[in-house]
Amino acid sequence: MKIGIYPGTFDPITNGHIDIIHRSATLFDKVIVAVTTNPQKSPLFTIKERMDLIQSSVHSLENVDVESFNELLVNYAEKRGAAAIIRGLRATSDFEYEFQMALVNRKLSKNLLTVFLMPNEKYTYLNSTIVKEVAKLNGDISCFVPKEVYIKIKEKFQELKKGAK
Amino acid sequence: MKIGIYPGTFDPITNGHIDIIHRSATLFDKVIVAVTTNPQKSPLFTIKERMDLIQSSVHSLENVDVESFNELLVNYAEKRGAAAIIRGLRATSDFEYEFQMALVNRKLSKNLLTVFLMPNEKYTYLNSTIVKEVAKLNGDISCFVPKEVYIKIKEKFQELKKGAK
Amino acid sequence: MKIGIYPGTFDPITNGHIDIIHRSATLFDKVIVAVTTNPQKSPLFTIKERMDLIQSSVHSLENVDVESFNELLVNYAEKRGAAAIIRGLRATSDFEYEFQMALVNRKLSKNLLTVFLMPNEKYTYLNSTIVKEVAKLNGDISCFVPKEVYIKIKEKFQELKKGAK
Amino acid sequence: MKIGIYPGTFDPITNGHIDIIHRSATLFDKVIVAVTTNPQKSPLFTIKERMDLIQSSVHSLENVDVESFNELLVNYAEKRGAAAIIRGLRATSDFEYEFQMALVNRKLSKNLLTVFLMPNEKYTYLNSTIVKEVAKLNGDISCFVPKEVYIKIKEKFQELKKGAK
Amino acid sequence: MKIGIYPGTFDPITNGHIDIIHRSATLFDKVIVAVTTNPQKSPLFTIKERMDLIQSSVHSLENVDVESFNELLVNYAEKRGAAAIIRGLRATSDFEYEFQMALVNRKLSKNLLTVFLMPNEKYTYLNSTIVKEVAKLNGDISCFVPKEVYIKIKEKFQELKKGAK
Amino acid sequence: MKIGIYPGTFDPITNGHIDIIHRSATLFDKVIVAVTTNPQKSPLFTIKERMDLIQSSVHSLENVDVESFNELLVNYAEKRGAAAIIRGLRATSDFEYEFQMALVNRKLSKNLLTVFLMPNEKYTYLNSTIVKEVAKLNGDISCFVPKEVYIKIKEKFQELKKGAK
Repeated sequence: MKIGIYPGTFDPITNGHIDIIHRSATLFDKVIVAVTTNPQKSPLFTIKERMDLIQSSVHSLENVDVESFNELLVNYAEKRGAAAIIRGLRATSDFEYEFQMALVNRKLSKNLLTVFLMPNEKYTYLNSTIVKEVAKLNGDISCFVPKEVYIKIKEKFQELKKGAK
Repeated sequence: MKIGIYPGTFDPITNGHIDIIHRSATLFDKVIVAVTTNPQKSPLFTIKERMDLIQSSVHSLENVDVESFNELLVNYAEKRGAAAIIRGLRATSDFEYEFQMALVNRKLSKNLLTVFLMPNEKYTYLNSTIVKEVAKLNGDISCFVPKEVYIKIKEKFQELKKGAK
Repeated sequence: MKIGIYPGTFDPITNGHIDIIHRSATLFDKVIVAVTTNPQKSPLFTIKERMDLIQSSVHSLENVDVESFNELLVNYAEKRGAAAIIRGLRATSDFEYEFQMALVNRKLSKNLLTVFLMPNEKYTYLNSTIVKEVAKLNGDISCFVPKEVYIKIKEKFQELKKGAK
Repeated sequence: MKIGIYPGTFDPITNGHIDIIHRSATLFDKVIVAVTTNPQKSPLFTIKERMDLIQSSVHSLENVDVESFNELLVNYAEKRGAAAIIRGLRATSDFEYEFQMALVNRKLSKNLLTVFLMPNEKYTYLNSTIVKEVAKLNGDISCFVPKEVYIKIKEKFQELKKGAK
Repeated sequence: MKIGIYPGTFDPITNGHIDIIHRSATLFDKVIVAVTTNPQKSPLFTIKERMDLIQSSVHSLENVDVESFNELLVNYAEKRGAAAIIRGLRATSDFEYEFQMALVNRKLSKNLLTVFLMPNEKYTYLNSTIVKEVAKLNGDISCFVPKEVYIKIKEKFQELKKGAK
Repeated sequence: MKIGIYPGTFDPITNGHIDIIHRSATLFDKVIVAVTTNPQKSPLFTIKERMDLIQSSVHSLENVDVESFNELLVNYAEKRGAAAIIRGLRATSDFEYEFQMALVNRKLSKNLLTVFLMPNEKYTYLNSTIVKEVAKLNGDISCFVPKEVYIKIKEKFQELKKGAK
């Protein structure tokens, strides 16, 4: 059985991520969407919230699991017996960072493949940060994220505004 | 009347920005230089100071106004009846970020155009951050910014050094 | 009256070009689509055929004219009294070439502006060459070009195949 | 059974191509290396020679076949029942062209995936053109290509020199 | 005597930096590795630690000195009588930032050259940040840094973990 | 004595090339401008004409020689005892090609350095091809090339037009 791991922060999951997950599910026997708990920046959603939002967005795909991990990605991938790490490539700006990570991961785990997929061009310039920036200023993000995320992110910013008072 | 909006942080305005404003003023009937009040990083100059520096730098251009805005750019542009958002493209590194923003803005406001202009190649690699870094270490920034900004930025760093003592 | 010139080879016009022409028509009082007769490579369509295909694709736009030119672009633009040259920016790979041309044109004609517009992301990776390559191998190009071009390009390749026999 | 198609000109196959084929062979149940007969430029090796050189270079891999094709890639892939097209991504300059092709192919065949793999960084800047340029000037290409190609390319250039006399 | 200055944060020095220093030492009569004390981000190692790690890594090179500096780079270079600033170029993403800095430095000191060298492709995607990220998660960084750095960085993270308890 | 080789086609030399030669002459004890006789495309000027134009453009620099070469660059560089190959980097689009060549050259000649210099930003987007394209259409190229080239290129195109009649 060929397992692919799709790692990320997913704060929150966007339609671009979901597009990549759908494509991955046709390529691998099993896809694990793996939420990193490594806190680089202060996230908007907790790990639990992020995993729930992913789960509700991809529940129709039977061969997709959602997990979190808190260690070096290559070690986690080895434990899961993964054949490959899956990464979405949207634009040139992604490209070099992704290459760097793929090369470093290969140095750390010789047989672990990195597989790059390309989302629909509709999602080329979409990422979680821009979704949050637009939502924060009350912009309409309904075409960028699934409905569950749309509702949750509105709630989140209302909470934050109340808390700021 | 065709209105173009040139949004930015302008912390502070540089000769590169001024070059774009001059070009825009020949393309549009009216150009609004719009200072965002959205505090991403801690700015060196206050909104008021930044607006004053822009004003004194472009006062010779009759069809240019200076404003500030505190909402989603596309909403602000719609209120002003703008035909287009104006952005300067200096180098490849700007390119993808600008594209992302333009695509997102188009999703949010279907008829709002983004127009890209290119500054003189003298200003290709100039931005506000580098001006501040050089000024902070007492480098000569007189060829990067208008005279008013040159004087003001020196004062600002002297204040900051006094405050640090 | 502000005139914009949109120069190109248009061999043949694609949906991406048409998208740029529509946007330009809202920005300028008059847009001239200018087909270069400068034969860099052997074109598939004659100047006359290319102009006819453009004409039939944009006839609904009242302020758009189609012309051909056979001289230095900046000289042609000056004769027409153009305020700006219009260029579509699709991807990073376009960017540097376009910059080079814009800088050279500015050197040759100081007050001539180059204005960059961005097509819908649907057309990001579309160009005339790829349309011809796909059509040549009998691929379906109906989503890449207007109907008139679709019909004409099929005829053209049938002629060429007959001629090759 | 998941089939991946690795298309290209392979004029001739390099160590970079071989690296991608090895990686692909662990990801797919079967990999078809598909030599295009579409003559864009005048190739150094005939289709038959190119296929033989690929065959001798990858004969140790049991799940790899070598074929040629003479039609639209997506049509060929559909006939073979391929799940994905495989492409190597070496550097930023590859990136946009590959994206364009992948997007066009997706338009032409909705369910066909394009999967990008990255060769070892040793092969980052290696391609068939540079191998031929160095070989033509008697440079040592033994670290760029398999031994069979090394021998054959020397023979080829000696033939060409004799023919030129 | 031609002096080259190789400035940087070196937090910590990697095999990629060392590769550049070795190349520089064949080009210049004297190379000064210059550690900036300008605290942009909170560094892992102190200036003293970073200088010691560089020193122990390049002690075999007789014409290489290690220094620190706390002023505008061009002023420091002038004081040292340097003919050139040395920068490593690893990938496209470095390129534009380096260009910007080189252009600004030229504006500030007209005769100061910036010389770009390229590390071995093995180090193309290596930088200090990635070394620290991998080390923090107990990954094996022995192929990325010299032995002294390998030992020291392990100690550092053990101290930090103890301190965090 | 440190020798740098600046190879190229120089068809014809531009102000950008001259800028790089001036910079190189301060870095190396001797600079050899080396015109390749390898005919990739049909050049406008003969080797002899190109060498004469370079000579007349840099005659004020005592440590600069002009030569031609007809073999693998690394072999030629070794014969001349060169410490480094000099290349100008103007823009991102140059970058990857130059990297590829530098890496291949390093493979072929282990100790040969490639040194990248950056021309004045005035020349960022200048190259021989664009000079010829503008000159061919009677555009004014006086700010792109030295006076000798300006005169010679006009003569050349007048000859070509006569020949075409």
